[in-house]
Amino acid sequence: MKIPFDPSKLNDLMNEADVSLVIANTRHNVRYVTGGYYYHFHANSQRMARSQYLPFAGIPRDAYENAFYIQRPDEGGQISAEGLWIPNRLEAIRGTLTSAAVLSKHIRKLWLSDTRIALEMPFFPADAFLALRDELPHAEFVDATPIFEELRARKSKEELDIMRRAYASLAEAIHSTFLAARPGETTMEISRRVEIEIAERGLSFLFALVCAGPGFLRAPSSARWETGQILHIDAGGSDRDYIADICRMACIGDPSPLARDLHRACIEVQDRVRARVKPGLRCRELLAMGEKASSMYSFSRYARFVVHGIGMVPYEQPVFLPLNERPLEPGMVLSIETDFIHPDVGHVKIEDAVAVTETGCEGLGDAGRDWTII
Amino acid sequence: MKIPFDPSKLNDLMNEADVSLVIANTRHNVRYVTGGYYYHFHANSQRMARSQYLPFAGIPRDAYENAFYIQRPDEGGQISAEGLWIPNRLEAIRGTLTSAAVLSKHIRKLWLSDTRIALEMPFFPADAFLALRDELPHAEFVDATPIFEELRARKSKEELDIMRRAYASLAEAIHSTFLAARPGETTMEISRRVEIEIAERGLSFLFALVCAGPGFLRAPSSARWETGQILHIDAGGSDRDYIADICRMACIGDPSPLARDLHRACIEVQDRVRARVKPGLRCRELLAMGEKASSMYSFSRYARFVVHGIGMVPYEQPVFLPLNERPLEPGMVLSIETDFIHPDVGHVKIEDAVAVTETGCEGLGDAGRDWTII
Repeated sequence: MKIPFDPSKLNDLMNEADVSLVIANTRHNVRYVTGGYYYHFHANSQRMARSQYLPFAGIPRDAYENAFYIQRPDEGGQISAEGLWIPNRLEAIRGTLTSAAVLSKHIRKLWLSDTRIALEMPFFPADAFLALRDELPHAEFVDATPIFEELRARKSKEELDIMRRAYASLAEAIHSTFLAARPGETTMEISRRVEIEIAERGLSFLFALVCAGPGFLRAPSSARWETGQILHIDAGGSDRDYIADICRMACIGDPSPLARDLHRACIEVQDRVRARVKPGLRCRELLAMGEKASSMYSFSRYARFVVHGIGMVPYEQPVFLPLNERPLEPGMVLSIETDFIHPDVGHVKIEDAVAVTETGCEGLGDAGRDWTII
Repeated sequence: MKIPFDPSKLNDLMNEADVSLVIANTRHNVRYVTGGYYYHFHANSQRMARSQYLPFAGIPRDAYENAFYIQRPDEGGQISAEGLWIPNRLEAIRGTLTSAAVLSKHIRKLWLSDTRIALEMPFFPADAFLALRDELPHAEFVDATPIFEELRARKSKEELDIMRRAYASLAEAIHSTFLAARPGETTMEISRRVEIEIAERGLSFLFALVCAGPGFLRAPSSARWETGQILHIDAGGSDRDYIADICRMACIGDPSPLARDLHRACIEVQDRVRARVKPGLRCRELLAMGEKASSMYSFSRYARFVVHGIGMVPYEQPVFLPLNERPLEPGMVLSIETDFIHPDVGHVKIEDAVAVTETGCEGLGDAGRDWTII
């Protein structure tokens, strides 16, 4: 089977970080390095007895033939059915400590026990880490998170296909939720419906921030959506851990002229920013453009503009900070958010994603950016 | 607001473990100690940028007025809307290290920095743990998992209500999935439908093991369910982290006489075991009864009998091991599984749950234990 990411890029990143071995210990990075595999039985819940399921995908530098996967014995059927490029498979019965014991033994077997090893530290269980450090006292452990983040920064055609479908499905799910709404429904009821609409389209539900104006509470609650009020749904869903995240607006009856102005401003800002996205544009430049575009309205004191990379992780590369000179590259995916949080109207927000192409960008899941009027 | 668990029991457990402070750092135990609260935005995905969302609920021994919750600033709206009994709230901007920094500072403020502190070690992020240990070099850290496990062992009336509804919904979801099936569908398609049926009933989907006989592969795959073949769906769903997990059987057309015998044996074993469940019965006795009951058939060499506690965690207290003298108590919930894995028929399995009552037990989600014939 084919390695689903760019192996030479990972080697370069490992050289830069001076690590001999990188370990994926999160669901999303196990999926990333395996090309989508994760033990389905534990995909939505890792906890079991007094511990949790903890698989490891390990890739030694310059030695892909020594890549290994530490699994539970009962994963064998799924691995056979789906295939896995990683040539070496080891079994650990259950739980963090047994996985760590198999890992430390295998690291010794690979003669890497006195080298620098990258683990996903913000996700690595403390008990497993202590056990690993006890067993490998001469190893140095560093964080693998930045390595994987950089490895994932440019999305492949296959990844963009997954994200394109996920965004389209999410836009549909939000639109269907709006259309089924009735005056007086609570944001909790609306949030529950988004969840079902998302599941019905083959995505995993992540979250639904639902805000009925003129209030600002975005958590699902007993707040009601009444005639004449605006509502936003800012929802997230994922497919194989690729995240889609958009925000759309609706109103029961006609939105007020001010609400329309705020929404139109969101679309204008989004479109102005989008029009400039292309390879080579620096992150700080794009951020400054969005901030400037959103600051030119009479109601701009209520504005907020955010742009962040998105893929398997919300707020991944590229990072939009005022001093970040990094240029955009084809295959990067950006989530662009424009909000106007107005005391008389409520929280007006449009969030969209674009994939950077060779010459500009492509909108993902652009359906329903206009008002949905109930 | 009322404390949702038995505070004196937690104090006793903390005394036994000689800890001054217990910290919940998993979603399920944060929900347990708060009575259901968890920041909805991160309930289905904690990862964010190069770290993850990491809230802490801390309860000092004998000092519930000092209980504290470390949250992200943007959780405030949800907490106000839902209420939270924990009187002290602290904010950490984002990520494991900022949460750990706020935690260590607060532990010092409570004068607990040279005491024994229980954390959920198999779930505590390694980077946060190292930071905490650096900041609190005189503290001793032990695992809180057994403390919370024991605290949760007997379910309250409110918890049993949640589990009763979750099990009933799950049984319905599986039945509806069977009824919608068509000959030649793949187990992947069937698994996807279970997921939607579960979501439509207000549960979070956990897993669906789907096995078309005579094969044994339970992972969703391209294996097809054809006329005359049996199929089991062993699925899990959860409500506020309370887990429901059952297995049901169906056949397209009539099951063979042998398949019927295997299924009847499952039901007999389950019912024999159930008839004996009551407070005071020892775990080892119940296990032995089930093993004996499943060993009395001509096809018993294909039998497997398992019983385990279930609630917020699969395989929680009580633990059924051959030497465990622990007696059953009212409010415990047991998942009982009988399998016959027969080479000519496939994997015949019934899994049910019962709640121990004062005098015996109550079945949860018992609908559809008979064959569903398509």
